[in-house]
Formats: sequence, structure tokens, C-alpha cells
Amino acid sequence: MRAADIAEPYPVVSLDTSARDAARMIGRDRLPGLVVTGRDGRPAAILPASEVVRFMVPDYVQDDPALAGVLGEVPLERITARLTHATVADLMAARSVELAVVKADDTVVELAATMARLRSPLCAIVAGNRIVGVVTAARLLELVCGDDL
Amino acid sequence: MRAADIAEPYPVVSLDTSARDAARMIGRDRLPGLVVTGRDGRPAAILPASEVVRFMVPDYVQDDPALAGVLGEVPLERITARLTHATVADLMAARSVELAVVKADDTVVELAATMARLRSPLCAIVAGNRIVGVVTAARLLELVCGDDL
Repeated sequence: MRAADIAEPYPVVSLDTSARDAARMIGRDRLPGLVVTGRDGRPAAILPASEVVRFMVPDYVQDDPALAGVLGEVPLERITARLTHATVADLMAARSVELAVVKADDTVVELAATMARLRSPLCAIVAGNRIVGVVTAARLLELVCGDDL
Repeated sequence: MRAADIAEPYPVVSLDTSARDAARMIGRDRLPGLVVTGRDGRPAAILPASEVVRFMVPDYVQDDPALAGVLGEVPLERITARLTHATVADLMAARSVELAVVKADDTVVELAATMARLRSPLCAIVAGNRIVGVVTAARLLELVCGDDL
């Protein structure tokens, strides 16, 4: 069984998609993250939902987590505004360069090894320059331990 | 708005739950991970789905990822058997000690900061020894960017 055999359709966003739209997609469909494509249609990043959450946190709190406790409430509107004025490219500033991407004919174990090593909740499956689909960690576990086995 | 205000009910597993049952729960409900409780009912671990996927990967491939490519196919039945004979405690062997857990009256920004810092797709919310619920990264983004705002 190869990666392409278990890939599923999945929404993609581009570098200039609004960060708020990206966050809304994750929230609405309870996605584990997003696939970001570059101008050439290839994956530019695999963005876990927790990385988008990072953008909700003011920079000075990221630098010193103890400040979150003394900060008090931040109005949700201010966080939403921060996301509205940013793009997906802004979310990716601190991303590692290695992408959770495997080739269509890679085995399921190669897929699992990549996902585990990068601690990524999803992995894009590519054939040449084309994304054929995505496998989430939950999908992979469903396949291996589903009731249909 | 405090963490407990947005917490949702969520399945928990114990240290002696079968790894296969834990994997099946993630797969069936497409969960981002699981909350593991100790004998005292407090969170013992927050286990991202990608950590459970790690257990699908033979040890020698985890040590040398290049081996996954030359290994060829591993029958799914063998991976399922590996999970059937393990418990959740076995899945946690290499877990970091800091848990993605916040207090019920922590603010949403403290919650987001914890999730982002630990790169965790979910966070347990506790009041004393009791788990009052879970907030996933997707739930948090839905709240901040949902269409109902």
C-alpha cells in the first residue's frame, strides 16, 4: 500500500490567503492544519493548527510566557484583527524548512516515519509538482486500526 | 473569557488502555490527540496523534529514516498487531514532561501561548484535580475567527 492509495482531498491555501480565512477554515472543519502552496502549485509549507494559534499570542508573551498570566484578558476582537491584517506568509515566519511531504509511491511506513519525525498532524502527498491529496495522522490511524479490519 | 468557558467534553484514556483502542478512537472521531489520565484522575499526558503514529514505525526506521525507503512494504496487519500488544503507557515512553494543561481560570491567551509553545494540537483544562474539558487548536481558532463573530 502506497501513500497515494490513502490520500484524501484537502483544502489548500496560498501564501497571500488572509490568516483569518486560514484560521476560519481550520476552525470550521476542525482541521489538524493546512497545506500552503507556492505560485508553482507545489507545497510551500505544512502548517499545523498549533502554529496558527501561535499567531494569536502577542510577541512579548511568546518571548516571556510568564507575561500571559499578568496580562489579563485580551479582547477577542483584537486577536481577530491581528489575524485579519496578516497573510498565511506571515504565519510561516518561524517555520522549519523541512516539509511534511512524501511522494505518491512512498510506503505507508515512510509516510508514518515522516509524520512522526516532524511531529506533523498531516502530510501532503505529491506526484511531481502536483498535490494528489493529504493524509492526516487520524486518517492513518483509522486505516491501521479501523473497525473495517 | 477564561479557558473553562470554551472547554469541550473530550474522551480520555488511561495508561493501561490498549494502544490499538486509543488509535481507533483518534481515527474514528478524527481527533487531534488524546488526554491520558493517571490513577488519580489528573492528566498524565497529552498525546498528539502524530505521537501515536510514531508507534507504527519500527524502531530501526526511527533511528535511521533512510531505512524506510529500502524496507519495502510492511503488512498493515503487522503494524496493527504491534499496537494491539502495547498500552498507552508504551506510547508515552519518549514524551516530554511538560503537559499541555492550563487552569480553568487561565485566560484564552495563556491557553494559546501554552498550545503554541508546546506545539500541541490540544490542551486539557483542569480545576484542581478534575479535568473540566479540552480545547483543541481548531476549536480555539473557530472561536476567534468563527462566522458567528
